[in-house]
Amino acid sequence: LIIVATLAIIAATIAIIALSPKCLDWWQSSPIYQVYPKSFRDSDGDGSGDLKGVQEKIDHFVYLGVKTVWVAPFYKSTLKDYRYAVDDFRQVDPSFGTMADFENMLSALHDKGIKLIIDLIPNHTSDKHNWFQLSRTRTDKYTDYYIWEDCAVVDTRVVPPNNWVSMYGNSAWEYDSVRKQCYFHQFRKEQPDLNLHNPDVNKEILDIISFWLEKGVDGFTVDAAKFLLEAEHLRDEPQVNKTQPPNLVTSYSDLYHDYTTTQVGMHDILRNFRQTMNKYSREPGRYRFMGTESNDHNMVAKTMLYYGNSFIEEADLPLNFYLYDLNKDISGNSIYDTVDLWMRSMPKGKWPHWMVGNSRNSRVASRVGKDYVNVLNMLLLTLPGTPTTYYGEELGMMDNPALNENSYPSAEYDPSEYPEKTPMQWDSSLNAGFNGGNTTWLPVNQDYKELNVEVQMQEANSTLNLYRDILNLRKGELPLHRGWMCYAFHDPNIFAYVREIDGLNKVFMVVLNFGAPTSVDIKNKVKDIPAQAKIRLSTISANNGKSVNTENISTQRGEGIILEYKTNKPLHNKEEFKNSCFISEKACYSSAFNLLYKNC
Amino acid sequence: LIIVATLAIIAATIAIIALSPKCLDWWQSSPIYQVYPKSFRDSDGDGSGDLKGVQEKIDHFVYLGVKTVWVAPFYKSTLKDYRYAVDDFRQVDPSFGTMADFENMLSALHDKGIKLIIDLIPNHTSDKHNWFQLSRTRTDKYTDYYIWEDCAVVDTRVVPPNNWVSMYGNSAWEYDSVRKQCYFHQFRKEQPDLNLHNPDVNKEILDIISFWLEKGVDGFTVDAAKFLLEAEHLRDEPQVNKTQPPNLVTSYSDLYHDYTTTQVGMHDILRNFRQTMNKYSREPGRYRFMGTESNDHNMVAKTMLYYGNSFIEEADLPLNFYLYDLNKDISGNSIYDTVDLWMRSMPKGKWPHWMVGNSRNSRVASRVGKDYVNVLNMLLLTLPGTPTTYYGEELGMMDNPALNENSYPSAEYDPSEYPEKTPMQWDSSLNAGFNGGNTTWLPVNQDYKELNVEVQMQEANSTLNLYRDILNLRKGELPLHRGWMCYAFHDPNIFAYVREIDGLNKVFMVVLNFGAPTSVDIKNKVKDIPAQAKIRLSTISANNGKSVNTENISTQRGEGIILEYKTNKPLHNKEEFKNSCFISEKACYSSAFNLLYKNC
Ligand SMILES: [Ca+2]
Ligand SMILES: [Ca+2]
Repeated sequence: LIIVATLAIIAATIAIIALSPKCLDWWQSSPIYQVYPKSFRDSDGDGSGDLKGVQEKIDHFVYLGVKTVWVAPFYKSTLKDYRYAVDDFRQVDPSFGTMADFENMLSALHDKGIKLIIDLIPNHTSDKHNWFQLSRTRTDKYTDYYIWEDCAVVDTRVVPPNNWVSMYGNSAWEYDSVRKQCYFHQFRKEQPDLNLHNPDVNKEILDIISFWLEKGVDGFTVDAAKFLLEAEHLRDEPQVNKTQPPNLVTSYSDLYHDYTTTQVGMHDILRNFRQTMNKYSREPGRYRFMGTESNDHNMVAKTMLYYGNSFIEEADLPLNFYLYDLNKDISGNSIYDTVDLWMRSMPKGKWPHWMVGNSRNSRVASRVGKDYVNVLNMLLLTLPGTPTTYYGEELGMMDNPALNENSYPSAEYDPSEYPEKTPMQWDSSLNAGFNGGNTTWLPVNQDYKELNVEVQMQEANSTLNLYRDILNLRKGELPLHRGWMCYAFHDPNIFAYVREIDGLNKVFMVVLNFGAPTSVDIKNKVKDIPAQAKIRLSTISANNGKSVNTENISTQRGEGIILEYKTNKPLHNKEEFKNSCFISEKACYSSAFNLLYKNC
Repeated sequence: LIIVATLAIIAATIAIIALSPKCLDWWQSSPIYQVYPKSFRDSDGDGSGDLKGVQEKIDHFVYLGVKTVWVAPFYKSTLKDYRYAVDDFRQVDPSFGTMADFENMLSALHDKGIKLIIDLIPNHTSDKHNWFQLSRTRTDKYTDYYIWEDCAVVDTRVVPPNNWVSMYGNSAWEYDSVRKQCYFHQFRKEQPDLNLHNPDVNKEILDIISFWLEKGVDGFTVDAAKFLLEAEHLRDEPQVNKTQPPNLVTSYSDLYHDYTTTQVGMHDILRNFRQTMNKYSREPGRYRFMGTESNDHNMVAKTMLYYGNSFIEEADLPLNFYLYDLNKDISGNSIYDTVDLWMRSMPKGKWPHWMVGNSRNSRVASRVGKDYVNVLNMLLLTLPGTPTTYYGEELGMMDNPALNENSYPSAEYDPSEYPEKTPMQWDSSLNAGFNGGNTTWLPVNQDYKELNVEVQMQEANSTLNLYRDILNLRKGELPLHRGWMCYAFHDPNIFAYVREIDGLNKVFMVVLNFGAPTSVDIKNKVKDIPAQAKIRLSTISANNGKSVNTENISTQRGEGIILEYKTNKPLHNKEEFKNSCFISEKACYSSAFNLLYKNC
């Protein structure tokens, strides 16, 4: 009998293991922390952050519990700002250090179990790139590396080949006096677009991917993905306002970008990048991640195409720019709409992405408001999917009021226009601990004495410690990183949702206040919820562990609470919640074996 | 010693077999013979050809040596012509017989080792299709099966949603009085376009593919592929002539079709079709073929996208419409240009397609001229790739002069406009042997007493027997179906090319005259050719087997000759022919083992 029982247990164990769903991969299980390296930590005191500086601050990622770091571009570039105009994709810009510094930083991250994502910038180079120099002189295969076209010169005025405008509103064509032709630039004139119709150019990009993956980099986000191809017929793009005189078309929003974005063949170029990354993913435990950057505004279906489809892989996730577009008009309903837009549009079985800020937009504390920093962090870290945190958002850093935000500045590379890029605020010492030198490339925000890592580490109720606590809770509780998300309630003030997983009767409800102080009767919406629920975590730490009456849940403006309760009637099985629930990866929990399994 | 030698031979044999390239698949090794079933053979004497009629004529395919037959649409359709407006994709139209007739025909073809290709028509249905009836009444999931849009009605005149025109030049929008909306039709108003943005519609098409593949069909050509998706924004398409008053835009060629053809996502729809076909290809020896039909005129790059790419399969081949566009202005140079356009544009390792006529264009004997029928058949059957022959082209059948050709007729389904669809000319009996009845749906061409299968079978020098002889030669001689094609010479009169394979010193040169009688010194162009070569096959059969002086090869207008000679210096190894040679599937020949092998 004992033998039979033993065999039965072995058989059951084998069956359960065979049915177990795969673990979440590294890019799914941690938030991505985006470092703007020029502003993170300046190791040598020259005023500019560097890669050694990132390495010096690895303990900060460890403290937060973050396992994925995305370091914004550090490639060789003569331009002074964004660093998206690259002179050489295989060199570290001296201002950031050396290739040895990069390799040391990567090793140090890996030693702590942290993955590194970097930017792939296939759409354009800087005009200092060797390829461009060889192209403007029509040298061999480089002749067609960029998008060249004849342009008439009438009375010394250049007439561009068509009406296409750059992101900055001027003509997207620039005359080159060496080649005596115009080249196309989707961004600045110092950033000529590569010709990705050319197989040789694609080969170059694949080689660059291999170069960094062989160094051990864990993945890429592909910059400016929708701009990778332009229509070869070069027809004028249609005007939004047909009656506008063509010579007054000077703004990017004056045209429909039917011929310069999302052209046929563009996704195949990205899928080809992916194929090369996959070769490196075959090493056990070394999955290489691919994200895509494409802000398609109200055309969410275009963004979803980057997920690929059932028979061909593309990005693991496209970056989600919809929360990033939120401003002071925030409300419970607007957050619900924004979350729901993604969840409803995403292909089945794919993994969501959430992001409230990055290096190209005003900081969330300034754009949306200080009051909402904590509740937005709670949202990011409790939705299903991978959140991204821009450096300093874990503190609630503000734009520097001494600088002016302008999402597409007209002046050329004026650092005074980048208030969201001021130095990271580490402590109350000189220059907020960014460096010990005399100078910083951008002025440190004057609030740094109160708002910095050191101070917030001491405060139990700080934004920093709340971020850390939510992330710890997320890691420790299965329903907060796997399973279902169901909408429970939303109105102008409140957005509330439930996280649950089949087989586990422990459920979490997240109640977030984006409006006025209010009290809601959640029990009226979600009948089977117990009369009392425990506050597992609140943005107001004094409330942690308290019990609330679910018929009367009070929250303040910007307050967020994570409630925990037990129920055997999960929402996703109820008819009335059929269209309010989403799951990315089906998994069920067996308490008997403390195991996840599928086919449930 | 004998044992060692035996082992060595065994080892060598194993190595050679291991290195052997795969055999050409069935769709690569035979021409495709396209049957227009309404006009091929009428088994029951009602005036219309039928599937039983096709079955009755299988011996004709056997006589020709053709192993692949493409039967044009026979689906249930109330329309009287092309049969591309289908009421039910799973039924045989009664005029063609029954499903049992189809199954019998298919079995009979398979019994003779002949494969069957049919049309997949995913772009549209007829307006009699049940889906359209359910869609116009907004019934459940069918509501969005078609492309519906509100359209204003001003003084009883319908104002369409935009300026899109159908292939026939009228507005592509038709008002439906039941649904009180407009629907989009790329072709006739009785052919509403399916909404392939809708996953349910895609699922329907996949089910239809499975339906026919389960019956045993060997493949599909996908009709109207470039039209599968339309831009959802419905913006006006740009006018070719910007100053044309919009109300005068009535012709298809008045607009650039940027929003109604080749939209992003279209290739993924086709690749998804392909995925379903691949499931059936796993049966040993049952590879299922997919071709695509898209005439992209001067945008050959768009056609080439249907080949898929290195990491995802799409069509085995897109139909080649470039020879099909040729007319009486034919010349040695124009044929060279047309062949070269495809060869240069085709992705590496892909397999070409060649076609001079089909059911939607005037017959080649009328369009290009009787004099060129034989030389064009010789071209088709000696180029690398898969040729397609429209029924009757193997006889040189003419358009019926009693009817008027019109590639997009304005009148509705007027059979008098289809001079290339007259009954197949089998013999000199009543109705050319098409049937023994009193009536034929189109008048038999009056030339049938001299121009028919029976007569041509008796004539050694007939078009029919030449077709058969070339095909037999192609099958028997390795370089004529595998290996390299190199251009040898072209001028206004002559197009000449060489077929050769590594390791075999037997070479074929095809010299085709598309102009005036002329004499060329090929030896001057191709230095290593012997002074004498043997005419293996000529369009003038009396010349077969003769020897010619390669410094002075004389041909008449419309004459074609296949020369055979021996050389150890193949053209594709010569520097000066580097850019004149193409290969689809690398293979070399070993005379020691009489084997093909790769890695050469
Ligand atoms: Ca571009
Ligand atoms: Ca369509």
